[in-house]
Amino acid sequence: MDFIKYQQLFVNDLEDTTFLADPANLYEPFNYIMHLGGKRLRPTALLMSTDVFGGDMNLAKSAAMAIEVFHNFTLAHDDIMDEAPLRRGQATVHMKYDVNTAILSGDLMLIDSYDRLFEYAKHPHFAEILNCFNEAARLVCHGQQLDVDFETRTAVQEQEYLTMIEWKTAVLFAAGLKIGALLANTSLDLANKIYDYGINVGLAFQVQDDILDSFGDPDKFGKKVGGDILQAKKTLLVIKTLEYISDGDLASFEASFESKDMAEDKKVSVIKDYFKNAGALAYAEDLKNNYRKQADQLIDSIVKQGYPKATIFNDLSTFLLGRES
Amino acid sequence: MDFIKYQQLFVNDLEDTTFLADPANLYEPFNYIMHLGGKRLRPTALLMSTDVFGGDMNLAKSAAMAIEVFHNFTLAHDDIMDEAPLRRGQATVHMKYDVNTAILSGDLMLIDSYDRLFEYAKHPHFAEILNCFNEAARLVCHGQQLDVDFETRTAVQEQEYLTMIEWKTAVLFAAGLKIGALLANTSLDLANKIYDYGINVGLAFQVQDDILDSFGDPDKFGKKVGGDILQAKKTLLVIKTLEYISDGDLASFEASFESKDMAEDKKVSVIKDYFKNAGALAYAEDLKNNYRKQADQLIDSIVKQGYPKATIFNDLSTFLLGRES
Repeated sequence: MDFIKYQQLFVNDLEDTTFLADPANLYEPFNYIMHLGGKRLRPTALLMSTDVFGGDMNLAKSAAMAIEVFHNFTLAHDDIMDEAPLRRGQATVHMKYDVNTAILSGDLMLIDSYDRLFEYAKHPHFAEILNCFNEAARLVCHGQQLDVDFETRTAVQEQEYLTMIEWKTAVLFAAGLKIGALLANTSLDLANKIYDYGINVGLAFQVQDDILDSFGDPDKFGKKVGGDILQAKKTLLVIKTLEYISDGDLASFEASFESKDMAEDKKVSVIKDYFKNAGALAYAEDLKNNYRKQADQLIDSIVKQGYPKATIFNDLSTFLLGRES
Repeated sequence: MDFIKYQQLFVNDLEDTTFLADPANLYEPFNYIMHLGGKRLRPTALLMSTDVFGGDMNLAKSAAMAIEVFHNFTLAHDDIMDEAPLRRGQATVHMKYDVNTAILSGDLMLIDSYDRLFEYAKHPHFAEILNCFNEAARLVCHGQQLDVDFETRTAVQEQEYLTMIEWKTAVLFAAGLKIGALLANTSLDLANKIYDYGINVGLAFQVQDDILDSFGDPDKFGKKVGGDILQAKKTLLVIKTLEYISDGDLASFEASFESKDMAEDKKVSVIKDYFKNAGALAYAEDLKNNYRKQADQLIDSIVKQGYPKATIFNDLSTFLLGRES
């Protein structure tokens, strides 16, 4: 069974689920964002993990929904903070309703996600599941805060940046995988191994996203290519360019990067040349491949521990990261 | 031991607690609001309940802190929605920092409160404690939503209003009492009885607050007397006046209530006369006394079930509601 089929299992469950209840003004925005679409990556990975480790995916559905509800809570609140007008081509919650509604509905969604997890109160790994979920929830907030902090800081170190993307995007994906494994009654050691796989794939995915944002094929990349450059985001490519660039080129790179009057196309093209020539692009590609390699090794090790079905995680890696380079 | 001594136990614990951690921009606002002061009613009631039912208050401290952290999360987010500049005479979180910080720190506080509860994973009543906490958390959001909804509605029914104040203020206080009892290993029946006591006292307190807002002694009432009238809030006094007033007086009451050019003192005095003459004030006083009576009966019943120490809840009622009228 490949990713799409697992995804379909979750999507079917989601389509059968309404989040509407009273007070309507609180639950309508909840229902709205949950049905906006998306890859449903985290809940799908959770179900895959339960299946790989011999658990019952039907019993894991509430946990999968909990993770997706939590993820959508973070989207609703992050979109307020980022003043984002659109999400998946549609109005964000605070634009369709208002900021107060997006705050309160988001709070309710966070609380709702715990209710879904509390259904596992009789599961032998219940405490472990709660701790895994809550640590991820806390780190997602930490990651969002670092992201906000970086916007106003002049210098960001590579390690800080990697910590930020780990917390902001990899941790919840990894927590889904771990919870899926725990629901299948794996050992804590195995559950932590699949968590580590999730962290590595999540980091590889985010580094790839940084690369594609500047170097992706405009026909395939969902967002506008060059968006990070035009927003002057301190991505890995910028951090490494600043580190690698020769003293002689530094001032002119910074001038271009901060320039407000260079034409957009020109600016993107100039900055991309710096990324390439300084060696930042090659560094990012290597880093992505290293994360991918570590992810692959973890799956090999899990297969060897007697879980042959774990090879489907290689398909998941490929779905997220493309063929291995 | 009276309320003040239990309160002091919690306050001592709180004073020994720092909420500071990294990222500092996330945890400083958390630490700031937690140390702003306040009556610490909910955690104190939780500790009292544990003590009354023969439990160990030291073991209940994390649950008391969880309830207080949760309560302060709601304050941080409600203050954004209400655009409140001050809380306990000091800047609200979104004014001292900014709205985004208040949103994200609030989210983190909500998540933090669960971590504190998860410390009880080995307690026999763990699942019950989680459910009690989460139901209260959900209803607090429902209550806030109703409060927001009522602002833009022309007519609010008495029962809707009472539901709103029950959810917004009574439920979390009651949940603290119930969790305190569960931590002392009471039966679920007893835990529900002390919960019901909390609901009745909470409702009596809120109805009293509505009365004092218009009829309180300016030297004793913490807020500006007449504030609800000047903000045209649809309190119980307004709802009952609209219900009881003669057809002949209705138009002139509404005109005064909605008037924007009447002098403030004059308006407060005119509206108070309507409240009195229509019988709304007497109704509210009766209602408060009835809630108080039900609260007293529940405590009597608990005492008779073999918990003589439960009489301290009568002191709690008096602390909150004054001597019985």
